[in-house]
Amino acid sequence: MTVATVNQKPHLAPAPSNPSPSSVVAAELAAAEAKLLSLLESHESLITEICHYLVDGGGKRLRPLFMLLVYRACGGEDRTVDDAIDAAIALELIHSATLLHDDIIDGGLVRRGRPSAFARYGAMPTLVAGDYLFCRAFELCGRFEEPLVRTAAQACLELTEGEMMEGRMRFSTTTTLDDYVAIITRKTASLFAAAGKVAAGLTAAPGSVAEAMAGLGNAVGLAFQMVDDLLDILGTEDKIGKPVGSDLRSGIPALPLVLAMESAEVRGALQNGSRLEGGTFDAILRVLRSPQIVARARSLAAEQVAIARGILTTLRPSPYRDSLGTLIDEQVNREV
Amino acid sequence: MTVATVNQKPHLAPAPSNPSPSSVVAAELAAAEAKLLSLLESHESLITEICHYLVDGGGKRLRPLFMLLVYRACGGEDRTVDDAIDAAIALELIHSATLLHDDIIDGGLVRRGRPSAFARYGAMPTLVAGDYLFCRAFELCGRFEEPLVRTAAQACLELTEGEMMEGRMRFSTTTTLDDYVAIITRKTASLFAAAGKVAAGLTAAPGSVAEAMAGLGNAVGLAFQMVDDLLDILGTEDKIGKPVGSDLRSGIPALPLVLAMESAEVRGALQNGSRLEGGTFDAILRVLRSPQIVARARSLAAEQVAIARGILTTLRPSPYRDSLGTLIDEQVNREV
Repeated sequence: MTVATVNQKPHLAPAPSNPSPSSVVAAELAAAEAKLLSLLESHESLITEICHYLVDGGGKRLRPLFMLLVYRACGGEDRTVDDAIDAAIALELIHSATLLHDDIIDGGLVRRGRPSAFARYGAMPTLVAGDYLFCRAFELCGRFEEPLVRTAAQACLELTEGEMMEGRMRFSTTTTLDDYVAIITRKTASLFAAAGKVAAGLTAAPGSVAEAMAGLGNAVGLAFQMVDDLLDILGTEDKIGKPVGSDLRSGIPALPLVLAMESAEVRGALQNGSRLEGGTFDAILRVLRSPQIVARARSLAAEQVAIARGILTTLRPSPYRDSLGTLIDEQVNREV
Repeated sequence: MTVATVNQKPHLAPAPSNPSPSSVVAAELAAAEAKLLSLLESHESLITEICHYLVDGGGKRLRPLFMLLVYRACGGEDRTVDDAIDAAIALELIHSATLLHDDIIDGGLVRRGRPSAFARYGAMPTLVAGDYLFCRAFELCGRFEEPLVRTAAQACLELTEGEMMEGRMRFSTTTTLDDYVAIITRKTASLFAAAGKVAAGLTAAPGSVAEAMAGLGNAVGLAFQMVDDLLDILGTEDKIGKPVGSDLRSGIPALPLVLAMESAEVRGALQNGSRLEGGTFDAILRVLRSPQIVARARSLAAEQVAIARGILTTLRPSPYRDSLGTLIDEQVNREV
């Protein structure tokens, strides 16, 4: 029953009086949500059912929120807000597609506190539903200019490469911190970076701002993934919506495991190359939860947060910029 | 050791003196091939390897060939031929992605006479490589206008729906011919229809021609799939590159099986809902190979060929139009 905040440094604590970061783009998010749900309708009822099961199942819409806030923070106008909304939907569709495929790849049976689509519907329909969501994103992107589509597609390509790289390094005893950062840069940060770049690209902001927003997305994505990795070992099943240590059991090179790679005990446990269970799992979990490992992971996430905050200061002050700051704080300080 | 042509009606026999239909677009196909192969390069060597394993492994490039012939037959000029080549590559990438995912879905262990990517590399890397190919297609489509992207994306959506519908009707004893046509319209013909429509859309031809070419693609796709289904039961393993009766064993509602659904013996065998093996498989294969079933299947394919030929007559005479005719004949008369 561990109860802890992932980062308790005072300068990262959320100001309790801040409104929810989504409140300043509530109308945009509502429009995105309605259209997102309408795009899940297929002639094949099982596709519709699986897509709704995943997409309605408690997703945080972090990527659309981030994208819409960047759009507004860069001066995006009402006149072109429909473009930003469609881009945000495309992003969530792509993210959802990868979640469906990820659960097949990882054999993930629980997501967001209930059976994963893979566990409930089986591999075949889940694979097809993932393809369907991806095609929906593809369809939506038709309205955009080539550079934006290229940015999104490149992010998707990186995502698959991150997935493959992670698979390759499962149960590896030699994964370095650089490897880890390379994996999550591709697997998680690439989509946030694309979100930042595309959102800025839809406004009249100059190209340098779009590059800065790509950097913001990258830092935010890295920080979020690092915190997610920490929650996997510090959380309770209730809060993280899946069994504690799921990454660890599957030998996924998540941050705490990579940081603990110097331990002979950890390397020994990985060398079997099979799922960690029972006493071995408990022993390694204790190593990963050691104060040094947790502090090191927090400090790496804090580095990215500092980078993100630095980039935020280059934007003109606005409620949207403030909300981006709050969003980062909220996510990095997620309680477990 | 059955040796037969699928359709032996005289008016469908290929004129032996005809040059290969690919010869009139040889330069375009060569350019497409070179770029296609270059797009398989990933930072992750396993992705590159799997993609090459599939794409270099004896694919007929039927879809790019069809698309480039339609482009030229509709008056497509050299000035915009790069667009047609990119569209043809995108199509082959999408088709290749679906083959990788199909083998996972069907548990297909043999493709084109050797182990499938799924059999050789396992489900996880094959799934990711399929996603990678799909993203490459998505990237390539960035240069096209919204209507073309929509056409391609819609075809992809239909494809996933066809896949799901086919899965739903496996081992079903009540699949009708209408169901069958609905499945293959989505699963196979949709991509040919999109190819025809997009190819014409890239030329100065009026919208009515694009619609006609969509119809051509639809008829061609239906005919090809019907012949494929027939080859599955009439072919030799050597010629079709996979074990004879693979569809039948897996309970896939392919044309001969659907046409034999009136047989109580066939329905009885399907009712178990598990793979057909041994004596049951042999007995059902004999039913499907009966002259009535084979003749009915051939006549259904011939109907589509007649429709396709009718549409071809609406195009101005050209070597490209002639080659489309030859392509159809060659495919429909494939020897087994």
